Amino acid sequence: MKVVVTGGSGFLGQRLIRALCERGALTDAAGRERGIERIVAVDRGECSEPVTDRRLTYVLGDVSDAAFIGGVLDADTDSVFHLAAVVSGEAERDFDLGMRVNLDGTRGLLEACRRQRQAPKVVFASSVAVFGQPLPAVVTDGTTPTPQASYGVQKLIGELLVGDCSRKGFIDGRCVRLPTIVVRPGKPNAAASSFASGVIREPLAGVEAVCPVEPSTGMWMSSPSTAVKAMVHAHQLPASAWGTQRSVNLPGLTATVAEMVEALRQAAGDEVAARVRFEADEPIAAIVRTWPARFDTARARAMGFAQDADFASILREYMRQYAPAAMR
Amino acid sequence: MKVVVTGGSGFLGQRLIRALCERGALTDAAGRERGIERIVAVDRGECSEPVTDRRLTYVLGDVSDAAFIGGVLDADTDSVFHLAAVVSGEAERDFDLGMRVNLDGTRGLLEACRRQRQAPKVVFASSVAVFGQPLPAVVTDGTTPTPQASYGVQKLIGELLVGDCSRKGFIDGRCVRLPTIVVRPGKPNAAASSFASGVIREPLAGVEAVCPVEPSTGMWMSSPSTAVKAMVHAHQLPASAWGTQRSVNLPGLTATVAEMVEALRQAAGDEVAARVRFEADEPIAAIVRTWPARFDTARARAMGFAQDADFASILREYMRQYAPAAMR
Repeated sequence: MKVVVTGGSGFLGQRLIRALCERGALTDAAGRERGIERIVAVDRGECSEPVTDRRLTYVLGDVSDAAFIGGVLDADTDSVFHLAAVVSGEAERDFDLGMRVNLDGTRGLLEACRRQRQAPKVVFASSVAVFGQPLPAVVTDGTTPTPQASYGVQKLIGELLVGDCSRKGFIDGRCVRLPTIVVRPGKPNAAASSFASGVIREPLAGVEAVCPVEPSTGMWMSSPSTAVKAMVHAHQLPASAWGTQRSVNLPGLTATVAEMVEALRQAAGDEVAARVRFEADEPIAAIVRTWPARFDTARARAMGFAQDADFASILREYMRQYAPAAMR
Repeated sequence: MKVVVTGGSGFLGQRLIRALCERGALTDAAGRERGIERIVAVDRGECSEPVTDRRLTYVLGDVSDAAFIGGVLDADTDSVFHLAAVVSGEAERDFDLGMRVNLDGTRGLLEACRRQRQAPKVVFASSVAVFGQPLPAVVTDGTTPTPQASYGVQKLIGELLVGDCSRKGFIDGRCVRLPTIVVRPGKPNAAASSFASGVIREPLAGVEAVCPVEPSTGMWMSSPSTAVKAMVHAHQLPASAWGTQRSVNLPGLTATVAEMVEALRQAAGDEVAARVRFEADEPIAAIVRTWPARFDTARARAMGFAQDADFASILREYMRQYAPAAMR
């Protein structure tokens, strides 16, 4: 079985690849459990700490280059995890870049999938950013996505294409709308949600974190490990579990920035928590304000997707791996 | 003021152009009523009975050719009515053609709009085909579009792009989801809805009509004149009337094929109505079955969009113009 992971050098891509290597097998489109013989990780950038595994190959290139991606997907690709994307803040600042990578990139990938011998399974990493104002207090499976930022528009268009290509039998697609993933290690990125990891990660590293939104801002979140499990679960479910609706809002949990900082105080002490400073950044705050903070994810739960217990457990997961010395 | 109409040789395009010539003026993006100095009608095909007006120019070309459409929209285009599209049946049979014209064509047009001196008003002719199963008995303004045919997917993607480009200030866009337009004169076309005009038009012309769907099939309909009025009204409304939601379900009325044939019987007699024969065509019926037949269009009515009184009045409108001899 051959698996392609786009955005494979990214934080989630790396964790997904590690999970796939550990599993060693996946269920193919025909419902058979098969050993993973090859994983091809595609990314525009080098990976800082690449996973080493004899089944794994890294390929550098631009996912929006149709010829490149067509070359990566040779005729017997069984599964694709499509994570490559220009993040929300960047897609808002550079409309053309977002359209090229997030829309053309997805389209080129689907075209390449059409040329496979068998319609491959495609897991598309979408986002709750497909939702925008006006929104009900609690977003349900019936809430219409009305994105108010280019990133969300491009992700929603990607979902529509994945859905239509599934209906046409070109692929067997599954779109998971990921909550904001916290806590991301490493450096801040250009996502408007970058601060949600920053307010935990930076203080734990002894660095001041500037939060661009109000303390009362609620976020719909998931831990990296739960998000990776969700992508694998989305892949493993039979097509019949998806039916004609190929997109799903993933389970998550709601916490305000104030609650996150309080959890940090309890886990790492006053001094660490005091390193969070609030300073409004209106362009960022304006994007985040359009995102929904509360969901009822009945369909995902019925489909067997898991969720994190609470923010404290997300925080502990991060601290165990990246800041064990700070744990009280 | 310069106005561009894509799909300008088509049935609705022609009626729209005639209406614009008669009005002679439109409200521009700044809210000023201005005289129409030029109308450019773009189409891939010649017009059978072109409107003659000194302000009007016909330009032959492919709307999906970005260089061509970029040339048509010179720097001072004030308004665009984007009607050009590959119809539903055709887009389903030829996925690539539908993607090229309905998606790339719309995108190329929006790119050309970005290069105008002032962000032009863009009226996008969308369709109730953006809705697909599962659907409630009555579609409301809150119903999520889940298209189950490529045409509807492509129209919905067009709406998303028009919405995002409006938010970005590239255009001042307005998307109207047209009901099925009946009665279209002329020949059947490749739209899955073609029969809805055929069951009226052919019998009145002394020709047998084959209806590919059950007599009980309900359709959400509008007359051509009401649809044209809606496109002009969509253009004339101030941007504030649209806000962040740039798409609207237009008012219409519901009739089953049986009710349409009964109206034909009453208006033109038994002999004419007997020319309708029912013969299932499953690929067509499968598409039509996914379309919604009943709507509550509260938002459109509040915005001042008009609707037809009943199917009998739609039928009379057609007969007066195209089959006066058959009127009893």
